[in-house]
Amino acid sequence: MDPFMQAAIDEAQKGLDEGGIPIGSVIVHDGRIIGRGHNRRVQEGSAIKHGEMDAFENAGRQPARVYREATLYTTLSPCAMCSGAILLYGIRKVIVGEHETFLGEEELLKSRGVEVNVLHDETCVGLMKQFIADKPELWNEDIGE
Amino acid sequence: MDPFMQAAIDEAQKGLDEGGIPIGSVIVHDGRIIGRGHNRRVQEGSAIKHGEMDAFENAGRQPARVYREATLYTTLSPCAMCSGAILLYGIRKVIVGEHETFLGEEELLKSRGVEVNVLHDETCVGLMKQFIADKPELWNEDIGE
Repeated sequence: MDPFMQAAIDEAQKGLDEGGIPIGSVIVHDGRIIGRGHNRRVQEGSAIKHGEMDAFENAGRQPARVYREATLYTTLSPCAMCSGAILLYGIRKVIVGEHETFLGEEELLKSRGVEVNVLHDETCVGLMKQFIADKPELWNEDIGE
Repeated sequence: MDPFMQAAIDEAQKGLDEGGIPIGSVIVHDGRIIGRGHNRRVQEGSAIKHGEMDAFENAGRQPARVYREATLYTTLSPCAMCSGAILLYGIRKVIVGEHETFLGEEELLKSRGVEVNVLHDETCVGLMKQFIADKPELWNEDIGE
């Protein structure tokens, strides 16, 4: 397992352990994690802190150059909001754990020149499948449905 | 002046008074403001709290139905991240103060069926022109440049 995807999965698991939605993300620059996060809808009553957004927030204010050289790892295909943040900051490469339980805006990202690699990781699929089965209403709320 | 755009401008002015970036937003449902906010990059060291995102955050967790019936007002054309949040939550109508100093993802929003009305408001233009002239590096950071 890629250690950065493992770190994203660890974040997702942490979110689940807190009673939240199990999606995690890390942003990597120059071989080092500069921001990590997980979905905080339940924990903070947040409508904007998806895993990827939390990773951006925890990375803090970075120069444009750093974002452009960074890779974002996320356990789940990024939604429109998180994809928009990826485009805003000019992240060039996104590694996605899985897009079987939810397909986000991968086509939009690719159309703007972002490299998107989907790992089809079974741990990521398992986390989301179990969560969606357990709390379908919470999941629908998180994706605006 | 539309009272809701005035409320967004008031938020932008509040941000400026705090030493921040003068962009404000309100989300209106059923004739009532349910969330208001302004850019908090400087105030909170936040990479994700643009004005619109702060308004979403302050609106809190809302049912999908509320977002679909809501109108988002923003003093400045929404960037990729904020446009992505608008798409995620299915906001159908966006009122933009101005898009002269920055043109966001209005075409993407329209291509997905969102109604986008640009007011070409001189107060909004003036706030941004002065700010960009005063702090160009901060502004470039906010739009990932």
